Amino acid sequence: MAKGITSREENYSQWYNDIVVKAGLADHSAVRGCMVIKPYGYAIWEKIQRQLDDMFKATGHQNAYFPLFIPKSFFSKEADHVEGFAKECAIVTHYRLKNDPNGKGVVVDEDAKLEEELIVRPTSETIIWNTYKGWIQSYRDLPILVNQWANVVRWEMRTRLFLRTAEFLWQEGHTAHATKEEALEETTKMINVYADFAQNWMGLPVIIGTKSEGERFAGALETYCIEALMQDGKALQAGTSHFLGQNFAKAFDVKFQTKEGKLDYVWATSWGVSTRLMGALVMAHSDDNGLVLPPKLAPTQVVFIPIYKTDEELEKVSKKVNEIKSQLEAKGITTHYDNRDTLKPGFKFAEYELKGYPVRIALGPKDLEKGTVEVARRDTLTKEFVEQDKVVDYVVNLLDTIQNSIFEKALNFRHDKTTKVDSFEEFKQILDEKGGFVSAHWDGSPETEEKIKELTKATIRCIPLDVEKEAGKCILAGKPSAQRVLFARAY
Amino acid sequence: MAKGITSREENYSQWYNDIVVKAGLADHSAVRGCMVIKPYGYAIWEKIQRQLDDMFKATGHQNAYFPLFIPKSFFSKEADHVEGFAKECAIVTHYRLKNDPNGKGVVVDEDAKLEEELIVRPTSETIIWNTYKGWIQSYRDLPILVNQWANVVRWEMRTRLFLRTAEFLWQEGHTAHATKEEALEETTKMINVYADFAQNWMGLPVIIGTKSEGERFAGALETYCIEALMQDGKALQAGTSHFLGQNFAKAFDVKFQTKEGKLDYVWATSWGVSTRLMGALVMAHSDDNGLVLPPKLAPTQVVFIPIYKTDEELEKVSKKVNEIKSQLEAKGITTHYDNRDTLKPGFKFAEYELKGYPVRIALGPKDLEKGTVEVARRDTLTKEFVEQDKVVDYVVNLLDTIQNSIFEKALNFRHDKTTKVDSFEEFKQILDEKGGFVSAHWDGSPETEEKIKELTKATIRCIPLDVEKEAGKCILAGKPSAQRVLFARAY
Repeated sequence: MAKGITSREENYSQWYNDIVVKAGLADHSAVRGCMVIKPYGYAIWEKIQRQLDDMFKATGHQNAYFPLFIPKSFFSKEADHVEGFAKECAIVTHYRLKNDPNGKGVVVDEDAKLEEELIVRPTSETIIWNTYKGWIQSYRDLPILVNQWANVVRWEMRTRLFLRTAEFLWQEGHTAHATKEEALEETTKMINVYADFAQNWMGLPVIIGTKSEGERFAGALETYCIEALMQDGKALQAGTSHFLGQNFAKAFDVKFQTKEGKLDYVWATSWGVSTRLMGALVMAHSDDNGLVLPPKLAPTQVVFIPIYKTDEELEKVSKKVNEIKSQLEAKGITTHYDNRDTLKPGFKFAEYELKGYPVRIALGPKDLEKGTVEVARRDTLTKEFVEQDKVVDYVVNLLDTIQNSIFEKALNFRHDKTTKVDSFEEFKQILDEKGGFVSAHWDGSPETEEKIKELTKATIRCIPLDVEKEAGKCILAGKPSAQRVLFARAY
Repeated sequence: MAKGITSREENYSQWYNDIVVKAGLADHSAVRGCMVIKPYGYAIWEKIQRQLDDMFKATGHQNAYFPLFIPKSFFSKEADHVEGFAKECAIVTHYRLKNDPNGKGVVVDEDAKLEEELIVRPTSETIIWNTYKGWIQSYRDLPILVNQWANVVRWEMRTRLFLRTAEFLWQEGHTAHATKEEALEETTKMINVYADFAQNWMGLPVIIGTKSEGERFAGALETYCIEALMQDGKALQAGTSHFLGQNFAKAFDVKFQTKEGKLDYVWATSWGVSTRLMGALVMAHSDDNGLVLPPKLAPTQVVFIPIYKTDEELEKVSKKVNEIKSQLEAKGITTHYDNRDTLKPGFKFAEYELKGYPVRIALGPKDLEKGTVEVARRDTLTKEFVEQDKVVDYVVNLLDTIQNSIFEKALNFRHDKTTKVDSFEEFKQILDEKGGFVSAHWDGSPETEEKIKELTKATIRCIPLDVEKEAGKCILAGKPSAQRVLFARAY
């Protein structure tokens, strides 16, 4: 076990926090609920951003930027939105400080009170649809396929680094369409983009499904989501895509002239993922030695560590390292040579294990004699001696192997932790003793859903898209059900 | 003149606004002083960001992210900072809304008042140095070379799109060093990175210099800046880099153990550029037909427009266009083929002129016969017929030529608009009749500087670094001066 990291078994929650802090991903700040994303954590977020951004652009989207502040009155315009959305938010009421007349420091200037308070955006549907009103007159102006990378604020009382913070970073896509069909197609297209990213980049298997009415986004007619399973058997919602119907267009009076010359309200979608993905990444793959990163999202994929006693040995080792290093970089692999002379190899090994560098290559005088290097895999903690003239191809393949292996491991874990149950007793027992996803029949009513939540703390994570229709009886109410849904306790 | 664009001569300020709005760069929002950056404008900003980010990383910097909010008390910790920095800012006082008990909508929940108000960051020195305290113990933790891409808010009363908005996007570098020399070196390194970017990417000639004491950043010991000249003869500060000495380390008690085992305060720099650069880009190069973009920052460098009457003609033209298009893309050039059949070529020509696409290629049946295409340059509005089999190389070179030519034109303009004067009468006359930079002697006192500003609205833009030392007499006070400084009226 790495120095200072609580084991998962001992305290899963503390283990998570230890890894986030000690691997240098993020830290608490002086501002309640707000985190500092440290350089190493931010480098991973940049890889996530870059890849998602490329995928958004490949599906025809453009980026734009809308104001941080939203006039308070905008929230009341869409009735479900204001009712369903949490009212915990940061409210700007004044626009000037002044020197404290009674002493040192500054105080709020009461003369500088805003006529209407401004809300720091918790999400941007309202300000964006207010803007779209000016952009859309005719079907020729549609579709609008816009995404925004931004910070948002929701005044959470209990916060956890990445998983739930008052301020977080995210992207929010907001699209406008001439037809319902096109908007629905966009909604599913984007949840599939998220699933593709989660599985093929994060190594995170996800279930695609729709939310029950009770878990739907405030103002949406349908919410699609991807749900992942963490190592403690709790589920985590990793991304959502909402079909908003004409609700926001009606609230902000956004009409367009159709091809046929009629006036109609515009159809809308919105979709987002956030720095919460960083939390999912940590919790899905890491171990008691620290972070485990899928190679495609690791800021540095291969680290070289020299083993030597004399300067002469270091010189020879470095020559060989630099040779292999530049060959790997020519193949597009990111590398780092840690030749700090104040630290011992064992210390460095532990540091890169903690930080989750996927591959470590050690090279010393004996390796020079034998023409080998020692290649260590972070995910399995296994080592192998590889011939120097074969190491480049070996590492290229190994990175692919690790990427796939991390995914397979998580997929097997999820498979083992998904249980079909047919009675409420069994349901409770599985939740308490095994955890994970529980596939069970539900009668479709919000009342039953709420009751199950009260009794077990489990929520409906999603109604999976690819589940077979299978008639049964609701585990709690005993009423008929057309298909199983996925329950879990969740982050 | 393009439809709907006021000419520069008629009203420069309105011309600027027309271009920003009509070319689709940005627009006013429902929130006072906040702008919406539209997709085309944001695409240019993304090119700016990407290139600057690459340059920051090439000079050893990493990105990180710090909280949006700063506790009010932090501002009082560095005395010059709180005194010198504008107190107009957005102040968060409450954290919850509630349904209005007297009617519809929501009101601020007075029970949810923060104990200490939070300020939406106008700049992040204070929250970052409060964080660095936890990161720095020894010289081994130094230097810290961190940059942040973020939104900031300053409650400006008179706003103009990009040039001065309440919320704007920027990057702010914040570095920590063990020695004064290293911090000074960082400060000048980064102002040179900015100058490199402005000149070689934006095509914007800049003067590098230091600010007078009166114009210095609040809390800095020295502020370096780059100053550019706009087409109306007014100057625009395009970037700043501050040597902060040990001021913030002292304010937030950030000490480190030196190599010699002593305790010392850490040395600091900060440096930033913002979406204001977008304003500079527009104002420096554009004309009465619309935007003129340097090819290196144009989201799309070449647009193809087909000329045809029949579908058969279009098919033949399209085939040739796609052939040339893919050859250009293989050379890394970004292209667009506008084959919309509802618009006439002349309309499209005007649209791409307005949006500043650097090169336009038109191709019709006559060109197919002759084996030519018509290539139009946006910057000079000139056209030329080019043989089809030579057009790829021609365009590759042309984009370089345009990039250089835009810079040269701006450089010549600045040269013509820079005047040495030796009397106050002449100083006033030049400012009123010619504008531009005025190079004059100044006695170095804040009082004289202030008096000149009062009398003429001109400020000292900078004390240029590469000016020859030349003794003279202050134009206003008549006292001795060791070198000329640059005055101008400014944005």
